[in-house]
Formats: sequence, C-alpha cells, structure tokens
Amino acid sequence: MSDIDSLIKEVNAFREARDWRQFHNSKDLALSLSLEAAELLENFQWKTSEEAVASNLSGIKDELADVLIYALMLCSDLALDPKAVIKDKLEKNNDKYPIDKAKGRKDKYSDLS
Amino acid sequence: MSDIDSLIKEVNAFREARDWRQFHNSKDLALSLSLEAAELLENFQWKTSEEAVASNLSGIKDELADVLIYALMLCSDLALDPKAVIKDKLEKNNDKYPIDKAKGRKDKYSDLS
Amino acid sequence: MSDIDSLIKEVNAFREARDWRQFHNSKDLALSLSLEAAELLENFQWKTSEEAVASNLSGIKDELADVLIYALMLCSDLALDPKAVIKDKLEKNNDKYPIDKAKGRKDKYSDLS
Amino acid sequence: MSDIDSLIKEVNAFREARDWRQFHNSKDLALSLSLEAAELLENFQWKTSEEAVASNLSGIKDELADVLIYALMLCSDLALDPKAVIKDKLEKNNDKYPIDKAKGRKDKYSDLS
Repeated sequence: MSDIDSLIKEVNAFREARDWRQFHNSKDLALSLSLEAAELLENFQWKTSEEAVASNLSGIKDELADVLIYALMLCSDLALDPKAVIKDKLEKNNDKYPIDKAKGRKDKYSDLS
Repeated sequence: MSDIDSLIKEVNAFREARDWRQFHNSKDLALSLSLEAAELLENFQWKTSEEAVASNLSGIKDELADVLIYALMLCSDLALDPKAVIKDKLEKNNDKYPIDKAKGRKDKYSDLS
Repeated sequence: MSDIDSLIKEVNAFREARDWRQFHNSKDLALSLSLEAAELLENFQWKTSEEAVASNLSGIKDELADVLIYALMLCSDLALDPKAVIKDKLEKNNDKYPIDKAKGRKDKYSDLS
Repeated sequence: MSDIDSLIKEVNAFREARDWRQFHNSKDLALSLSLEAAELLENFQWKTSEEAVASNLSGIKDELADVLIYALMLCSDLALDPKAVIKDKLEKNNDKYPIDKAKGRKDKYSDLS
C-alpha cells in the first residue's frame, strides 16, 4: 500500500472510531480546510517568514497537518486519488504557465504576455 | 522513492524550471494556501454539498490540487515530512479527542466533558 | 461627524494608545481580516445557519466586529471612505448583475447569459 | 438616517431587486465574506504592502467593498447594529488588551503577562 493510501486509511479509521463521518459532508470539510488554512496563516501574522518559522514552527507543523488531514478526507469522500489530482493540476499549470513565458515572473497566468 | 517524495520532487522541479523559488517565502506560501482553500470553498457557495459536487467536481479537484501543492511546497521548504507531520497530529488529536469522550460529538475539544 | 468617521476615530485611538500602528502595514491588516473572517465562519462549522445563530450569536457578533474593525483600519490607512467604496462597488455590481439577467439567479456574473 | 443605516438600506434594495435573499442564509453569507477576504488578500500575494498598494489599489478597494457589503448583509439579517457591535468589541478588547500590558506588543492577549 502506498504512503498516501495508508495515511487515508489512518485518517478514516480515526473519524470512524469517533463516529464523525455523519458530520463530514463535503461543504463542511471544505469549510474546515479553509479554517485550518487560516490557523496556519495566523502563525505569520505581524511577523516576517523568518520570525514566524523561528518562533512558531511547532504550530506551523500542526496546522499544516490539519490542512493535509482535511484534504485527504475530501479526496477520500470524493473518490479522488491525491497523487492523480496533483499530477493533473501540474499538467494544467504547465499549459497555463509555459516556461518561456512564466520564467522569473510572479504574474497570474491571465497577465502573461 | 515514496509517492509523497516523488510528488514533492515534481512540485519542486516545476517551480525551479520557472525560477519561482525566489518568491516562495513561507509567509507567502501560507497566504497562497489560504487563497486556494477559499477557491476550493467557492465551489460550495450558495449550494448544498450534493449540488456542488454534482456541478463543480472538476473545479473542486483543481482547487484541492492547488491546496495540496502549496502544502507540499511548505513541507519541502521547512524540511518537514508530510507523513510524519500528519501522523504526529493524529496522535495529538487522539489525546484531545479520546474516543470515549468524543464519539458522536462535533464539539471542539475545549468543550468536551 | 458621521457614524462611520466616529467609529474610525475610535478604532484609531484604540490602536494608537497601544502603539500598535507600527505593526499595521496593509498586507498584515488584510491577512488579519481574513483570519477574523475565518473565525466568523467557524461559528457555522458542522452546523446549519439556524443551529449556529441559535447557539453562537454572541461569537458571531464578536467576529463580525473584528472583521469590521480591520476593514475600517484598512480604509483609514489607505485614505478610503468606506461609504464611497461601498457605493462605487454597488454601482459596478449593478452593471455586472443587471436586474433583468440576474434576477433570481445565484450564478457568478461570468455565467449570466 | 445615519450613514450606516442608509448603506444597509441600499445593500438590501440591491439584493431584493434581484430576488437574491432566498440564497442568503447566514452560513453562506459568512462563507461569502471569507471568500471576499481572500480576494482582498490576493492583492498582496508575492508582494510587499507598498508594492500591492502601488499596483492594485483599485482591486483592494473593490474587495474591501465586497467584504463590507457582506458584513452589512449579515448585520441586517441578524438584526445587529454595526456601530453597537463594533463599540461592544472595542470595550471587550480594552479588557483583553489593557494599555499598560499591551502597549507596543503584538502578542495575542493570551500571551500578555
């Protein structure tokens, strides 16, 4: 079993043991993921990257984990393979951001030449 | 090489080929992750879970991918192993949400008996 | 003095008394506003609107206040008049969502006929 | 009529003319507010405050407006007076962040002496 599949198995076992799947509709899972993304970002409030990483690495790890856990729950509930979903998007991004146009530029794809 | 390591390798190759790492400080990566989390949630705006999944599954996949890609970039830049980060948090959650107290309850840990 | 101007005055007096303006660059204020928006949304996690309003109205009020306070700080720092900013956007929305096309429809403007 | 009441009146007239109130339950309004907060923050992605304000002031204004509009809709639907809600929170903040403890410090109240 791949690492990803085994993590999904653990995440599902965790929520099943607590009979939590009854609350886990996709809208509330996406909402929860955005809440955790905000808690991750909170570690950087009023700080530079360096200050935040120096003082809050433990909090950053925990919130990154929460984001990943909700993302895996959503993938599982929607029968999506995280690896395939990522690979597909990298392909789309390759078209939206061709190297010759996007190299060294932070512009959104709609603003490339 | 595990699936996760190979995905991180692809994500890094993508941004290196475009000379984008110069923009990728942790604060802006966490900010970007929260923006993608919002774009994921947007698929559910004004809709029930079922309506959203029925009409926007493709958009949901793309935004989930974007969230995962930024999460992997952050892990990579902070020398974090996504698998270890998730396993550690599931352990912490096991203490915060013991099965006997948390089963069938959606309350936050601070509101458990 | 209008209500809005007097609220901005209070908000500014609050942060000046605490010597907080040194931290208040626009990026961190926008970041903070998004964190408060997430805390507002958290009141609705796993709940319907009715359940949330019935059980968390006090929390909803507090977080709405936090959102409004950061919005007023941003307006103040960027020399924007909240009333003008809102009126301008309602005019733009009137063009993006003409009544004859948008009535009864929840679609984004880009999806209107 | 105060400025705030007259803005709420305009916002309500706008959504009533389009028969949109049928979609406006509090959960989706809070969700929408967080989406707009993310769109506001997007103006600052990969940029410093100065760069963002110099290049995206128009976008910042529009998204600030969207945040304020959703906040006013929520206040209206929950029978809350924005001015009272803000004043109450400033009082609570005064207790959480007494000047003698909080002056010049960016720490969260839970981390003050």
